Amino acid sequence: MASSLIATFLYLPLCYCLYTASWESLDTRPLPEWYDQAKVGIFLHWGIYSVPAFGTEWFWKNLKENNTAYVNYVNENYRPGFTYQEFAPEFTAKFFNPKDWAELFRAAGANYVVLTTKHHEGFTLWPSTYSYSWNSVDIGAHRDLVDELTTAVRAAGLRMGYYYSLLEWYNPLYMRDKASNFQTTTFSDNKAGPELQELVERYRPDIVWSDGEWEANDTYWKSEEFLAWLYNESPVKDEVVVNDRWGAKMLCKHGDFYTCHDRYNPGVLQSHKWENAMTIDTRSWGYRANAKVEDFMSTYKLIVTLVETVSCGGNILLNVGPTKDGMIIPIYQERLRDLGKWLAVNGEAIYNSVPWKVQNDSLHTTWYTTRDTAVYALCLKWPTEKKYELGSAADLFASNSTVVELLGYGEVDWDIYYDVVEITFPDRAEVFSDWAWTLKITKY
Amino acid sequence: MASSLIATFLYLPLCYCLYTASWESLDTRPLPEWYDQAKVGIFLHWGIYSVPAFGTEWFWKNLKENNTAYVNYVNENYRPGFTYQEFAPEFTAKFFNPKDWAELFRAAGANYVVLTTKHHEGFTLWPSTYSYSWNSVDIGAHRDLVDELTTAVRAAGLRMGYYYSLLEWYNPLYMRDKASNFQTTTFSDNKAGPELQELVERYRPDIVWSDGEWEANDTYWKSEEFLAWLYNESPVKDEVVVNDRWGAKMLCKHGDFYTCHDRYNPGVLQSHKWENAMTIDTRSWGYRANAKVEDFMSTYKLIVTLVETVSCGGNILLNVGPTKDGMIIPIYQERLRDLGKWLAVNGEAIYNSVPWKVQNDSLHTTWYTTRDTAVYALCLKWPTEKKYELGSAADLFASNSTVVELLGYGEVDWDIYYDVVEITFPDRAEVFSDWAWTLKITKY
Amino acid sequence: MASSLIATFLYLPLCYCLYTASWESLDTRPLPEWYDQAKVGIFLHWGIYSVPAFGTEWFWKNLKENNTAYVNYVNENYRPGFTYQEFAPEFTAKFFNPKDWAELFRAAGANYVVLTTKHHEGFTLWPSTYSYSWNSVDIGAHRDLVDELTTAVRAAGLRMGYYYSLLEWYNPLYMRDKASNFQTTTFSDNKAGPELQELVERYRPDIVWSDGEWEANDTYWKSEEFLAWLYNESPVKDEVVVNDRWGAKMLCKHGDFYTCHDRYNPGVLQSHKWENAMTIDTRSWGYRANAKVEDFMSTYKLIVTLVETVSCGGNILLNVGPTKDGMIIPIYQERLRDLGKWLAVNGEAIYNSVPWKVQNDSLHTTWYTTRDTAVYALCLKWPTEKKYELGSAADLFASNSTVVELLGYGEVDWDIYYDVVEITFPDRAEVFSDWAWTLKITKY
Amino acid sequence: MASSLIATFLYLPLCYCLYTASWESLDTRPLPEWYDQAKVGIFLHWGIYSVPAFGTEWFWKNLKENNTAYVNYVNENYRPGFTYQEFAPEFTAKFFNPKDWAELFRAAGANYVVLTTKHHEGFTLWPSTYSYSWNSVDIGAHRDLVDELTTAVRAAGLRMGYYYSLLEWYNPLYMRDKASNFQTTTFSDNKAGPELQELVERYRPDIVWSDGEWEANDTYWKSEEFLAWLYNESPVKDEVVVNDRWGAKMLCKHGDFYTCHDRYNPGVLQSHKWENAMTIDTRSWGYRANAKVEDFMSTYKLIVTLVETVSCGGNILLNVGPTKDGMIIPIYQERLRDLGKWLAVNGEAIYNSVPWKVQNDSLHTTWYTTRDTAVYALCLKWPTEKKYELGSAADLFASNSTVVELLGYGEVDWDIYYDVVEITFPDRAEVFSDWAWTLKITKY
Repeated sequence: MASSLIATFLYLPLCYCLYTASWESLDTRPLPEWYDQAKVGIFLHWGIYSVPAFGTEWFWKNLKENNTAYVNYVNENYRPGFTYQEFAPEFTAKFFNPKDWAELFRAAGANYVVLTTKHHEGFTLWPSTYSYSWNSVDIGAHRDLVDELTTAVRAAGLRMGYYYSLLEWYNPLYMRDKASNFQTTTFSDNKAGPELQELVERYRPDIVWSDGEWEANDTYWKSEEFLAWLYNESPVKDEVVVNDRWGAKMLCKHGDFYTCHDRYNPGVLQSHKWENAMTIDTRSWGYRANAKVEDFMSTYKLIVTLVETVSCGGNILLNVGPTKDGMIIPIYQERLRDLGKWLAVNGEAIYNSVPWKVQNDSLHTTWYTTRDTAVYALCLKWPTEKKYELGSAADLFASNSTVVELLGYGEVDWDIYYDVVEITFPDRAEVFSDWAWTLKITKY
Repeated sequence: MASSLIATFLYLPLCYCLYTASWESLDTRPLPEWYDQAKVGIFLHWGIYSVPAFGTEWFWKNLKENNTAYVNYVNENYRPGFTYQEFAPEFTAKFFNPKDWAELFRAAGANYVVLTTKHHEGFTLWPSTYSYSWNSVDIGAHRDLVDELTTAVRAAGLRMGYYYSLLEWYNPLYMRDKASNFQTTTFSDNKAGPELQELVERYRPDIVWSDGEWEANDTYWKSEEFLAWLYNESPVKDEVVVNDRWGAKMLCKHGDFYTCHDRYNPGVLQSHKWENAMTIDTRSWGYRANAKVEDFMSTYKLIVTLVETVSCGGNILLNVGPTKDGMIIPIYQERLRDLGKWLAVNGEAIYNSVPWKVQNDSLHTTWYTTRDTAVYALCLKWPTEKKYELGSAADLFASNSTVVELLGYGEVDWDIYYDVVEITFPDRAEVFSDWAWTLKITKY
Repeated sequence: MASSLIATFLYLPLCYCLYTASWESLDTRPLPEWYDQAKVGIFLHWGIYSVPAFGTEWFWKNLKENNTAYVNYVNENYRPGFTYQEFAPEFTAKFFNPKDWAELFRAAGANYVVLTTKHHEGFTLWPSTYSYSWNSVDIGAHRDLVDELTTAVRAAGLRMGYYYSLLEWYNPLYMRDKASNFQTTTFSDNKAGPELQELVERYRPDIVWSDGEWEANDTYWKSEEFLAWLYNESPVKDEVVVNDRWGAKMLCKHGDFYTCHDRYNPGVLQSHKWENAMTIDTRSWGYRANAKVEDFMSTYKLIVTLVETVSCGGNILLNVGPTKDGMIIPIYQERLRDLGKWLAVNGEAIYNSVPWKVQNDSLHTTWYTTRDTAVYALCLKWPTEKKYELGSAADLFASNSTVVELLGYGEVDWDIYYDVVEITFPDRAEVFSDWAWTLKITKY
Repeated sequence: MASSLIATFLYLPLCYCLYTASWESLDTRPLPEWYDQAKVGIFLHWGIYSVPAFGTEWFWKNLKENNTAYVNYVNENYRPGFTYQEFAPEFTAKFFNPKDWAELFRAAGANYVVLTTKHHEGFTLWPSTYSYSWNSVDIGAHRDLVDELTTAVRAAGLRMGYYYSLLEWYNPLYMRDKASNFQTTTFSDNKAGPELQELVERYRPDIVWSDGEWEANDTYWKSEEFLAWLYNESPVKDEVVVNDRWGAKMLCKHGDFYTCHDRYNPGVLQSHKWENAMTIDTRSWGYRANAKVEDFMSTYKLIVTLVETVSCGGNILLNVGPTKDGMIIPIYQERLRDLGKWLAVNGEAIYNSVPWKVQNDSLHTTWYTTRDTAVYALCLKWPTEKKYELGSAADLFASNSTVVELLGYGEVDWDIYYDVVEITFPDRAEVFSDWAWTLKITKY
């Protein structure tokens, strides 16, 4: 006798189905266009770990495994025996204004947002039917954070995606399945499966960003079945994209885009669409109340990473850790707005671009993209003596009619000696841009 | 494909089974002897409602349904939006000493204890595999209260029983099943069923005291299947007893003993074993921090109720509400110890007794029990002028050799005029007992 | 240059003054009549110690001096470094209904109430001008508890008194004066002195019940000056009474009534009015959340103490420790209401009585009082065989016209053999009283 | 009769006193040299207002006066009746590492630090003898924050100053004095006076930065007496400097340096040493958890303010609001470290400098200082076309031997046409500095 949950989960057999529940079939699905064009997304790690705001978002795991710093932190600041769950009432989101967030992300030049709707702790940021008394409506914020943020993000013209951790470190049902070497499937059948389905049906994400898959294989998670349903039947079947975290040892193998591993940034062109999920705070995905400014990537380093990523065909997913109060602290605001200022000038080399035949020159200070009829050379250093050399672009300058524009300035002169193209930069004081500069090369 | 949970729940088909999963068969099971002999049990309502300690243990329900007093209580004492779940960290049981409790219950003359292992709120007092982050180990006490109390109660020579609420008011899985008019069974299949089974297998109760059954019928709860397993296969199959709350409209119909309704005290002999579950605090089963002494039953009233109950074949289950700190407050201690003092003198008329052919006389001031060769007349009033009349016991006095002993004093004289037996009481100052007095009548 | 505070404290030199600021003069003041007539008072220890509700009201002192039980209690239940002051926000008095308290005290037969307006911790139960941020309006209850209780107690027809601790264990100003061997007087001049004066002027107590005097002598506290002002000039000069705690080594020497030491109960007639300040919870003056019923005096023992006290010329001050929530727990309610029931029958031997020429007989089971034309023999045991002997009252029975009434019953027979008077008690079952019995002896 | 406190406060009459307690005498004291040389200080507003971290450090005042935003904040997030004092337990400073702070301030190029040891709320960051139960050792941090920070700041080679608010908004003693129109002086005599003296004697500040003086005149505060003691007798008499806030309507009249009003920045040369106390967060001196990046001054604006201030003879006191946890958030770290980077290149024009004969040119884009033989022209804008004009410095260029160095680059060419000096700037890309540029002009 199957429960109704499972019945629901097995999906309707009569659908007009494009895909079968097999990787072979699922892998044939074309990538929805919007995702490749978007290039820039914001990743948000927000959960109960935002309350201690110490160490990383793996606070609980570190604590349970007796990492000294974490153990000391709890011992010094809380009553003996204090549990991770007891942080939850402080996750109030009291200053959370989703419109402010959405405006900030738009100002940063992002085209989509991915929120941790549930991290490995299992706490859901929406009133999940399957997470009684362990969600943001029952404790702490008393708000459906998924719904509020989704509404605001969409109103600002951005797409909304959901990070969802399949596993839950300390859910006894999961621990039991794990202890059975995943021969039992209570957790995946009754919790992860139906909960992810609820999330999709209720809030209709543009991205399903799976994680926490690594301990069990895809058959345990019923990933093929889920994706077949998602692509064939779900309310988001046409536009949704998913990442590649669907079972142990499957990174970089299946999914609409690959994430491979955290901060994946291969530096060379990839044959499949991929995403560089990385953090502005280099030490944590979640908020840290005791972070130092040197832990945060500089705007320059952010732009370098963005340029490298896009040139090699990737999207960038910039992570920010909001506070338990629901604020994105000023240093993040500054980085994001700086990025937005840069993109306001240089964005045409990023959005909707595709990789060029060459990704970068030997010194890795110039990276290329192309879009329509133009090739963009993104220069990560201002030249000494105003002479910027392009080492790999000679064929663009075969004819004198090639025009080079420095974005944020105007047309600039070029010359070619053998295979080396030399661009004459203006006085830097006259260029309305900073950090990195884009040469738009048009061959007529 | 059925989940492993369900597989477990369906039980093994090959067992040497005395009972089938049908009321017809289950009802044939003989009552384990110990239960009828025990007579006196202690009921404990202890849960998150012990934190607000206001109103009743139905605090949450009252709050959700906008009972003014409850709404005001929360509005006046907590931040806006405060939820019931946020009481849980204060359920610390910091003074809980299970040995003290067990000693008290033994001193009260009780032979068994029934603890609310889970009330309608769903919070479990043990680390249930099925109640992640909503149990007494994950939040508040950080202790397995079921285990600790069970161990102490057994060490004191008493039996241990578990109250378990099938329904959970605000568990979304339950609410969904309910909304489907119980056509879906997710909650009963994946939560209530396996959780109750875990409780039995892990802690081995002598009593399974079901509640919260009333909204769905026994097929939803799979009660027949559960009881067949309990009686045939479970580790407690020989000694366990269960009450009668297994499905809507089934009170007083099935089960080892009937509870019928709260404070059931029919006043006439019953054909089936029954239990009078009642409260010392007449206004609540759970602890109330603002209770007044007049809300508590007097020792006299407790003894009256006990006498009435036992005379009619019932057991009494005296309820006490411990505090969030894990204390049983002094007024309860006083009542229980007073009861114990009374039972120390009069207990032979109670324990192991059976109803006599007559239950009481017309004025309801004398009630009868019998045991071995004696009949016990329990007198609820001290006679004026020392002459106590027994209106329904004439045939015991047909011969002069009948001996009457006033327990706590010694032999007393009797006389008979027509059908009225008159017992001569001594000077009350010389009787070592209070509240009510037992005449032990032995016919030689 | 004197501060204005001190100027105020030195009082006006032009008053029509009955008393000078010297014990010689102050000791001549007659005791206001009401106090001796009142006999029964309720003492209330209520303060921040009611929050931990562990050990005694000397919680802080024990903690600071590393009493293991207290240190463990804090270490086990609070974050490291937790301070006593951090208990204060939990002192909410959320259930405090002063009318309920007053009604209870009236029902107990009390004629006055003494509240700890400030204990050695220094926390004031009114918004003292001199205790900024360390009083019940600034933290916790947000209520003027002195004012609220005073109003309710007076409305119920009882008198209101204030316990006030002169010293404050951990007030740095006091500690500094103490370190100087009380050569500096900053604390007494600027804190204790003016604060006590404020209390008197603002709320007008009938009793000033000083405490915490023992470390410094009366000149440090300026006790003579205070009392001269109190008796000559204060708004309560005519009716106020004070106890005897006004300086080191001065107990039992000065004051309207003597308290000598806690639980003072000399058992013999005293030449000066005195008070037996004692606790119903034999282990603490403050509330203990983990108290056991055996720690509380029985009603019988309370009545014995009352009888002994009044027979020897004392008043009794029965202490009760309310909870941080503002409740007087049921066991206290029961004791107080039982006492009230006893006084309803036997009170005429107590209130307005004076000691008789003999206080008690040799076995200490009979104690005497007298009032108007009657002598009252208070019998602490019910006689065996109904014959109660009075060993010291022969001269009252010289004539046959002496009449003896058993209160709560009616007239009883008496006989006299040599010097022994024998009273014939009725059947105990017919006497409407319990615990102790009063013989009212009237000689015509 | 004078209390010992007052006796102490009146000081010894026999000292070898340079100054009398009169402004006339006090004003003759020369400014200790170090202060004028230091130029850059860090101001820290840290107190109970850091807990709500909402609005400004005047949170309490706004709340009491029913400012809607503040009232709503409290109503929405706390239980009814919540008081400001109840924030104090959360002021834990749990991440406070004074060495990190000191290192940051040194890296910022600051030479001194001023901490709010007590703000208008009255809460002291040291265990004041006069602020029982309302200080950082008794509640919250359980640490002597004044001592810890002072030690670390001095170890890093910086000077330490103390902000101290004379008034306390809601101290009843102060309110009473105020109600008397300051005819009574209880608060100033027994609280503010001795407490400030304790602070000086115990921790020995280099700066006493008084505030909260405005409601009462200097005779109420006994400011002249205090300063006479400070200058003549105190342990810091030789090196200490004080500001000008010592009584109503006295700003800019007395004191070692003038602050005049918050964010004082006159833009013209002043005849008396002054200080520009200003905030990086333009909306608050205290930490705001919901601040936006646009509320913070940019590094450029900070440098502009610094340059203007120093050119006109002032010091700058840059305010930063630490969190209740004891962190200085990253945006502040970034601003301070950026400032330090700028000062590392340009500091020789700032530290130990004195104003030049001209402060700035007409467009306010060039400001001047001088030190030793050099004049420094601080340029707030990078020139277009590389030609930077100095409008007021012609006489420095009378001879060809005048040398101009662009700090962070090297020698640059100059030319003079009539009165206009034109400096030729290099390619900006080659200058190792940002935001503003210093021309060091040396006339040989």
